[in-house]
Amino acid sequence: MNKITIVKIGGRVINKDELLKDFLDQFSNIEGKKILVHGGGRSATSMLEKLGIESKMLNGRRITDQATLDVCIGQYAGIINKKIVALLQSINIDAIGLSGADGSIIKADKRPQVPIDYGYAGDIKSVDSVKLDSLLKLGYVPVFCALTADETGQLLNTNADTIASSIAVAMCEMFTVDLRFCFEYDGILADLKSAAVIREIESVNFQELINLGVLEGGVIPKVQNAIAAKQKGVWSVSICGISNLVDLINATKIK
Amino acid sequence: MNKITIVKIGGRVINKDELLKDFLDQFSNIEGKKILVHGGGRSATSMLEKLGIESKMLNGRRITDQATLDVCIGQYAGIINKKIVALLQSINIDAIGLSGADGSIIKADKRPQVPIDYGYAGDIKSVDSVKLDSLLKLGYVPVFCALTADETGQLLNTNADTIASSIAVAMCEMFTVDLRFCFEYDGILADLKSAAVIREIESVNFQELINLGVLEGGVIPKVQNAIAAKQKGVWSVSICGISNLVDLINATKIK
Repeated sequence: MNKITIVKIGGRVINKDELLKDFLDQFSNIEGKKILVHGGGRSATSMLEKLGIESKMLNGRRITDQATLDVCIGQYAGIINKKIVALLQSINIDAIGLSGADGSIIKADKRPQVPIDYGYAGDIKSVDSVKLDSLLKLGYVPVFCALTADETGQLLNTNADTIASSIAVAMCEMFTVDLRFCFEYDGILADLKSAAVIREIESVNFQELINLGVLEGGVIPKVQNAIAAKQKGVWSVSICGISNLVDLINATKIK
Repeated sequence: MNKITIVKIGGRVINKDELLKDFLDQFSNIEGKKILVHGGGRSATSMLEKLGIESKMLNGRRITDQATLDVCIGQYAGIINKKIVALLQSINIDAIGLSGADGSIIKADKRPQVPIDYGYAGDIKSVDSVKLDSLLKLGYVPVFCALTADETGQLLNTNADTIASSIAVAMCEMFTVDLRFCFEYDGILADLKSAAVIREIESVNFQELINLGVLEGGVIPKVQNAIAAKQKGVWSVSICGISNLVDLINATKIK
């Protein structure tokens, strides 16, 4: 089967122009078909502040009311997505920016209000791998922002890690899929002081790593997403940084 | 040759949810291949106000500094584009949202600073009709916002009427093109009191209509764009409203 690389890029890198350009240069060096998924939480938070709208978070997830949703759409599908697309085009990568709503490639439902009402948050129902493949066949590099829509046309804020995993799993039908979560370190750190990367995480020792306090905070759902993708048939799943995005040297491999 | 309909929809309709849904219903009734181009000037102005950024206009065109550009990108490519795409998907139109930067389908240059510095304003260099056609062949209805990028990856604010005309002219190579500028009246009004529509405007009487004071303000560049498209080979050019978008009854025809 053909190989495809799916890269998720997170918040801190996106908000600094120099880091973003570095990242996009590295991304452009990945050979073969590829898809980029980007977050953008920090820029939404900063715009909410400017507009005097309170950021409401629960368990690391945003509670999205109408005003917050509009800010997220403007930042994710607007400013960040189009900046990335235009910069990729300037280095000869034929990027096309997408939300889940475009072509209804990612179908979602509004998350149930019980037990917690997250507002306009989306849970992914399906990814249309055939339609995505038809864009890849035209030579495009799809660049997804973290938004989906339900069948009534309601836009929904959707976790970018989950979008990346869902696309990766769906593409397994027709590709050997290599999924890379890129963030600010070379991999999951065992120890912030020495910056030592955990080279392998297995689903069987995931809970142990949490119990030991090695994995904490926002890293837990990230690793959980990565493990789930691996278990659902993704050929290779890694957590890496910008400098090892292409060769994955010293990255965290999910086994 | 195959027929294609290109519709431009302007500011006032976009900002009212009910009018927008009405418009999208009518748009969905247009048969055959089609492309939608939308503006969004009023929503950018209102967001600039909320952020305390002064709107600078000259001859009806926006002067776009960095902060203004970011607001325009957020509103045009984000909020308005994705809302339209998601609503069209909900009525079974397979919409895909695009800026000129996506797929580099519309290439532009930053407008020269002399005689007037409009800031990050784009002048269109070319429209890639072959790439646009490949998306149409996949069954997509492209929905363009009024943004382009130059070859350095700089995003540029670009007049939506001009984008619609430029796409229409480019598509003449392979289609019989029907271009419809949709706005708040059924056509260009000869008289606001009676709401009488001018049924035909010819390039030869365009200047006369200005001299007589029939055409004024923002209508002048709109009609100018329409006449230019007609002269460059677009088969049919009309200015219409929502209610006559499909049948063009009582619309203004450019001859």
